[in-house]
Amino acid sequence: MSKYWNELTKRIEPYVAGEQPKDKKYIKLNTNENPYPPSEKVLKAISEANNSDLRLYPDPDCDKLREKVAGYYNLNKNQIFIGNGSDEVLAFSFLTFFSSDKEIVYPDISYSFYPVYADLYGLKTRLSPLKEDFSINVEDFLSNNGGVIIPNPNAPTGKYLDINSIKKILNYNSENVVIIDEAYIDFGGQSVVGLIKDYPNLLVIQTLSKSRSLAGMRIGIALGQEELIEGLNRIKNSFNSYTCDRIAQVAAIAAFEDEEYFKECSNRIINTREKVVNKLTEIGFKVVPSKANFIFVSHKEIEAQKLFTKLREKGVLVRYFNKPKINNYLRISIGSEEEMDVFLEKVMEII
Amino acid sequence: MSKYWNELTKRIEPYVAGEQPKDKKYIKLNTNENPYPPSEKVLKAISEANNSDLRLYPDPDCDKLREKVAGYYNLNKNQIFIGNGSDEVLAFSFLTFFSSDKEIVYPDISYSFYPVYADLYGLKTRLSPLKEDFSINVEDFLSNNGGVIIPNPNAPTGKYLDINSIKKILNYNSENVVIIDEAYIDFGGQSVVGLIKDYPNLLVIQTLSKSRSLAGMRIGIALGQEELIEGLNRIKNSFNSYTCDRIAQVAAIAAFEDEEYFKECSNRIINTREKVVNKLTEIGFKVVPSKANFIFVSHKEIEAQKLFTKLREKGVLVRYFNKPKINNYLRISIGSEEEMDVFLEKVMEII
Repeated sequence: MSKYWNELTKRIEPYVAGEQPKDKKYIKLNTNENPYPPSEKVLKAISEANNSDLRLYPDPDCDKLREKVAGYYNLNKNQIFIGNGSDEVLAFSFLTFFSSDKEIVYPDISYSFYPVYADLYGLKTRLSPLKEDFSINVEDFLSNNGGVIIPNPNAPTGKYLDINSIKKILNYNSENVVIIDEAYIDFGGQSVVGLIKDYPNLLVIQTLSKSRSLAGMRIGIALGQEELIEGLNRIKNSFNSYTCDRIAQVAAIAAFEDEEYFKECSNRIINTREKVVNKLTEIGFKVVPSKANFIFVSHKEIEAQKLFTKLREKGVLVRYFNKPKINNYLRISIGSEEEMDVFLEKVMEII
Repeated sequence: MSKYWNELTKRIEPYVAGEQPKDKKYIKLNTNENPYPPSEKVLKAISEANNSDLRLYPDPDCDKLREKVAGYYNLNKNQIFIGNGSDEVLAFSFLTFFSSDKEIVYPDISYSFYPVYADLYGLKTRLSPLKEDFSINVEDFLSNNGGVIIPNPNAPTGKYLDINSIKKILNYNSENVVIIDEAYIDFGGQSVVGLIKDYPNLLVIQTLSKSRSLAGMRIGIALGQEELIEGLNRIKNSFNSYTCDRIAQVAAIAAFEDEEYFKECSNRIINTREKVVNKLTEIGFKVVPSKANFIFVSHKEIEAQKLFTKLREKGVLVRYFNKPKINNYLRISIGSEEEMDVFLEKVMEII
């Protein structure tokens, strides 16, 4: 605590990202990174952009990247916003659309950055308790509020919400922005991007950190009707004109150009996930059905925190959240086949 | 305007960055970029980092880069903060240290992003009018306030404030944070980084966009005592944990490792600046004495806006600010010798 901090700085509890250990080499199944490298096309594009032009500012509007994403999703460029990872896009979205006079609603178990953003901007929140099976209580979002945000699939549960439920929420909340945070949509879910044309209140947020193997380059995307995107630009341009650097922009474009590789990696992860789910179920784990690149699991005999610690000792990092309702679960990112074999082997040794 | 925007989004007037033209090739003297490419060591470091590790998140704490900068300035790692360009560092600094109950003070002519940050966070401001010769009125900063921010050299004037005046301001404002924005310090000014050990209220902000030719990679730095840096980290980690990507981090480290090249480029720019100043003075321009990589000039016969337009027609972009007190001045970035020769030639043609 310092006398130079303002009240906000003193009060706020920052988000704690998954550990990026520096002490030794782990099998990292704790931050939902992709086990497969970025596309060769991405590395080639970066190599080409690695030249004297780095002395120049990047395009603040990311025009070429927005055109690429627009083409990919059959939207137009002005329906696309680019940010420094989906965290920055989320931070801007909260600041652009939500205000302190009305509660924003999100599931009680969801991305733990949401309450931090709410606190950062002095927003009131209402938490909708997940059902026993971790599914979302759609009814809770059909009530007077100042905005909605739902991760789909949800994090850290991996649970997917069907498109009809989202339509119901969009229909009810026609006066408020509904953000669907699709960070993990490419691992078996169906994106609601197709609904954008019908719903001026829908903002979809995606990232290149997971399914496109570019966590290291920080690229997030918001998709929505032009008015929403224009609002985001107003706030972004009041904060930092250039948040996506030259290399990140070309890397992202190339990632969208290699559809085949993208599908191949995503499918491999989905297949590995199903194998791991079967195995874990066999040995007594309860596994929440997942459409993400991670699974959320609990064992009837061994406490999650204990399992977390033992796995760490054996060189495998997973994520444990010491929070009500989920403090006996572990979130395990889906790594490569080989990594998951080691993980399963270590789990067997422990239980 | 959209019903989905909150009051802030409706109200705010975003910062307008210098034009990044896409219509044709200009001699770009409008955004203070460095005419010289990044060091060869930077390109080499990027090339080495362009590998499968891009699938992994960057180090959110930028430890290696902070160690490098700390070593360079004889500070310790915990006295260094890294952000996505100095604009992001400024945005975080306003949010960390300033509050709405007391006015923050800055010169009436200074970086035009400051009032935008103040508006973004609902801060009250008091503007200190520059003197006739564009020098800073030190007395104005020796008064009750909630914080001070001064660019040194000032932008867009290029005018430098001596270290004793800054000490005076630091001494008076011992209860408030004083931010010295040193974006342009490497072109002839003396940094106040050396004062950090004596002043717990001093935060120095620098960038790699100007003197280190890395505008395209977005790296900004704050330097101050540990308490200030810890505050910045609290706010940053409540906004976006990873704002500086893997490639940017290694590029920045390499830039600090090539001191010789850095000095060579900076000296070349300083020499070019002095030549251009002499030439412009000869042909009837008033030139504000500059310690930056740009000059601020006015001609007794031709209006600045007209000169701006004519230069643009002739393929030379400079910056014009349509604002009281400076609307008859142009800000001209110092390009290469060759670029400035063309610039001078075009100016001669016009006047």
